[in-house]
Amino acid sequence: MKFELLSKDPGSKARTGRIETKRGTVDTPVFMPVGTAGSVKSMSPDELESLGARIILGNTYHLYLRPGDERIARLGGLHEFMGWRRPILTDSGGFQVFSLARINKVEEEGVLFQSHIDGSRHLITPESAVNIQRNLGSDIMMSFDECTPYPVSFEYARESVMRTIRWAGRSKEAADGSDQALFGIVQGSVFMELRDMCLEKLVEIGFDGYAIGSLSVGEPKEQMLEIMNRLAPLLPDLAPRYAMGVGAPEDIVEGVGAGVDMFDCVMPTRNARNGTLFTSRGTLNIKNNIFADDPGPPDPDCGCYTCRRFSRAYLRHLYMCRELLSYRLNTIHNLYYYLRLMEQIRDAISSGRFEQWRNAFYLESGSGDDKLRMNGGP
Amino acid sequence: MKFELLSKDPGSKARTGRIETKRGTVDTPVFMPVGTAGSVKSMSPDELESLGARIILGNTYHLYLRPGDERIARLGGLHEFMGWRRPILTDSGGFQVFSLARINKVEEEGVLFQSHIDGSRHLITPESAVNIQRNLGSDIMMSFDECTPYPVSFEYARESVMRTIRWAGRSKEAADGSDQALFGIVQGSVFMELRDMCLEKLVEIGFDGYAIGSLSVGEPKEQMLEIMNRLAPLLPDLAPRYAMGVGAPEDIVEGVGAGVDMFDCVMPTRNARNGTLFTSRGTLNIKNNIFADDPGPPDPDCGCYTCRRFSRAYLRHLYMCRELLSYRLNTIHNLYYYLRLMEQIRDAISSGRFEQWRNAFYLESGSGDDKLRMNGGP
Repeated sequence: MKFELLSKDPGSKARTGRIETKRGTVDTPVFMPVGTAGSVKSMSPDELESLGARIILGNTYHLYLRPGDERIARLGGLHEFMGWRRPILTDSGGFQVFSLARINKVEEEGVLFQSHIDGSRHLITPESAVNIQRNLGSDIMMSFDECTPYPVSFEYARESVMRTIRWAGRSKEAADGSDQALFGIVQGSVFMELRDMCLEKLVEIGFDGYAIGSLSVGEPKEQMLEIMNRLAPLLPDLAPRYAMGVGAPEDIVEGVGAGVDMFDCVMPTRNARNGTLFTSRGTLNIKNNIFADDPGPPDPDCGCYTCRRFSRAYLRHLYMCRELLSYRLNTIHNLYYYLRLMEQIRDAISSGRFEQWRNAFYLESGSGDDKLRMNGGP
Repeated sequence: MKFELLSKDPGSKARTGRIETKRGTVDTPVFMPVGTAGSVKSMSPDELESLGARIILGNTYHLYLRPGDERIARLGGLHEFMGWRRPILTDSGGFQVFSLARINKVEEEGVLFQSHIDGSRHLITPESAVNIQRNLGSDIMMSFDECTPYPVSFEYARESVMRTIRWAGRSKEAADGSDQALFGIVQGSVFMELRDMCLEKLVEIGFDGYAIGSLSVGEPKEQMLEIMNRLAPLLPDLAPRYAMGVGAPEDIVEGVGAGVDMFDCVMPTRNARNGTLFTSRGTLNIKNNIFADDPGPPDPDCGCYTCRRFSRAYLRHLYMCRELLSYRLNTIHNLYYYLRLMEQIRDAISSGRFEQWRNAFYLESGSGDDKLRMNGGP
C-alpha cells in the first residue's frame, strides 16, 4: 500500500490524498460502507461499484465465526468470496468482541469470549486476529486492540491502553512478510494523556496507517470531536488517518476538518433499513404519514437510482409493508448520499474552499431543524 | 388488448401466441412473476425487465388494503407507483379474500371480510373489485369470483359456481367503457360438470380471456392436470387461457401441453426466499451443509447474474446469515430459471418439437430424484 498526500486546505487541517493498493486507488477523505458478514446489507457488489464505493469494510469477528476465515481462504479470499474486486479493509475484531460477544476474560495473551451466535468459546489473540485477516486477504488489516466502553475509569483505561500497545507490537510481528497493509489503533478513552502516549508508542512501532479507536461509543459528541481534533494532527502526515465508526455526516465533516482521511459507519446502511434517509436538507423519516400521498422523490436534489425512479409515497408503502425492496432502495439512497458527500468534500479541499463548503453544508442540511424543513418541504 | 395465435404444436394442445397491450407485447406461453403489494419481492423493476419479465401480477386484495387503490390512482396508477412500464395483470382479490382474510359472510352482494392486517371490516363486490382494478390501472383485470377450498361438497361447489357466474356478469358490466381487458374465471372445484357449465356460461357472457381458478389449492396433482387438460381445449381458441396459481415447473409444462397460455405462481420467488433454487438438474437446497465449501455456481448451465457471479458457498453463507442479499440473489436465479423455461417452451412449440423438448426436460430435471442428483454434484 502507498499513500500520497495531494493537497492541504489552507483554513483547516483537512487534506486530500490517495491510497494505492494492488486492487485499485482510493481517494481520501473516503467513506467505507460496512460489509459486516461479507455483504453490505442488501447491496450487490455491482451496485456498490456503481454507487462509487472504492473500498469497503469487512468485520473480522463476524467472518471468523461464520463462515470461518479458513473456509474463506480455501474459497480464494474475501474478495473472491463476495465478488468485490476493489480494496477491503478488515477490522481487528476487537470492537465486536467487546460489544457483541460475552467476554469471559481479557488477559495478556488475548480475549476469551463466547460467540453471540451459538455460545461457543473462542480465544482471539493479536496473532490470531492478524492470521484471520491474512486468511481473509484484505488490503488493509487492523491490529488487535481493546475497545474500552464509555465511561471507563482512568485506571482501567490506562491498564487497557498499555495492553493495546503491547498487542499492537505483537500484531506488527504477526503481519511480518504479508503484502497486506497494517494499521495501528490509538486507544485511551477520553483521557488525552493516555491517547497521546498511545499515539507516540504506535508511531514508534510504525504502521502503514493509524486509526483512532473507541469513538462513537457513547461519549458526548464534543469529546469525540475534541479527540479527533487533538489526535489527527499529531499523527504522521504521510500515513492515512482513520476515525473508526465515525459517523453522522456532520461528524465526518468535522473529522475531515481535523485532518482525518478515512471513515466507516453503519449509519447510512442501518438507518436506511430503519426508514431514515439522509438528504441535502436534513434527514427524512420515510415512515411519516405525510409522505403517504407524496409523489416527489426523497431528495429533489439527489441523482441516485431511488430518487430518479421512485416517490416518497412508494418508498413509504414499501417500508410499511416491510418489503425487501424497501431496505435496498433506502440503502442505495443513503450510500449515494454519503459517497457524494465525500466527493464534495474532496473537491472542496482540493480547490481550497473547504471552509466555505462546510459553512454551506451546515446551512443547507438544517443542523437540527431537519423535520421542520422536510415537513415544510418542496 | 389483442390476442393473436401464432402456432400450434402438432403433437399436443400446446400453442404460441401474442398478447398486444398499449404497454407492450407479451409472447405466450408466459409466466407472470407475482408482485403482491406493488413489488415482486426483493426485485427492482429494472432487474425484472433485464430478467426478461414481460408482464407481472399485482394483488388487488393487498393493494386495496395497503396503500389503497384510490391513493394509487391519485399517484398515477400502479405502473407509475411501482415504476414498472410493462403490462400488469391484477387478480380480482377473490383468492386472497378466501385464503388470507377472515370471512364474515359470503352473500349475493359480495363478501364481507376482515383485513388480515388490522382486522378492519370490508365488503368486496364484483363491482368494487373491478373498480379497484380500474383505479390500479392494470392492463388485464380479473372478474370477481369465489375461490372454493379443497375439498368442498358438490352442493357448496354448485351454489358457489352459480354465484361466481352471476358475479362474472356483474364484473363485465362494471368494466363497461374501460380500456382495460377483463378475464372471466372458470370455477367448479374438482367437479367436471360444474367446470363445464361455468365455462359455457362465461363464454356466453364473453371475456377477453379465460382463467381456470381454484387450481393448486390442495387437490391431488393428477386432478389439477385433469382439470387443465379438460378445460383448456374447451376454451375459445382465440382468447388467452390462464391457469391461476400454476405452478411448479412440471405443472407449467403440463399446462402448456394442455393448451394454457398464461401462468403465475409465487413458487420461484417464495422458494427463493426459503433457499430452494430451481436448476436444470432439479432443485437445490442452498442451506445444505454440502455446499459450505462449494466454489461452483448454483447451476453450471445457468447464465443468470447469480450463477455468473457467486458460488454455492457464498449463497449458503448469505442464507445462513439471513442476509438481505440472499433473498435477492436467489430470486434472480429462480425467476431467470422460470423465464428461460418459458422461452424454451415457446421456441419448442414454434419449431414443432414441443413433445421432444418435454421428454428431454423430464429426463434432465430428474423428476423426483433431484436431491440425489444434486448431492452427487455436476
